[in-house]
Amino acid sequence: MARFKHLVIVKFKEDVVVEDILKGMQKLVSEIDAVKSFEWGQDIEGEEMLRQGLTHAFLMTFEDKQGYTAFVGHPCHVEFSATFSTAIDKIVLLDFPSVVVKAAR
Amino acid sequence: MARFKHLVIVKFKEDVVVEDILKGMQKLVSEIDAVKSFEWGQDIEGEEMLRQGLTHAFLMTFEDKQGYTAFVGHPCHVEFSATFSTAIDKIVLLDFPSVVVKAAR
Repeated sequence: MARFKHLVIVKFKEDVVVEDILKGMQKLVSEIDAVKSFEWGQDIEGEEMLRQGLTHAFLMTFEDKQGYTAFVGHPCHVEFSATFSTAIDKIVLLDFPSVVVKAAR
Repeated sequence: MARFKHLVIVKFKEDVVVEDILKGMQKLVSEIDAVKSFEWGQDIEGEEMLRQGLTHAFLMTFEDKQGYTAFVGHPCHVEFSATFSTAIDKIVLLDFPSVVVKAAR
């Protein structure tokens, strides 16, 4: 079965301490078992025109859509989202079953 | 060492046959050894406001930044990019060293 991905791309507000947000995310993914993997990154290529001001990408993987739904409704996620939403200037969010064309070696 | 990610999120033009684009991508990643993994997905949650019109996410993984640089400069990528750019209405592109917080189990 296709794994389900939750992709969040953001531009943080200027006064935000990204490390604090990351600590919250680390706590979140450790508390919620439905999150099977979590990785993130900060764009370093700096092609401003192509990233549309967005700087950070966060990618979570779930077993399936049900796992994702459980995550979204989890009290820890609801609480975290409230804080997270006050920290962001811009967001793009995509949720999709992942189609693996070339598997990691 | 941190793996390097190339994340492309797009909204295709209305008359584009996405399957054709995907075939081109599959060929591309099979031809370029530097691409260690490739997966993609189409958003199914439909939260239009949060995805900003963007519908498809493409994620490639490289051993490191050098692998990514080799990919970008590869003749097959240069050729594919020319076609790809005519097919898209909107794009967001982020390139980053991946920080793995929770590893896939």
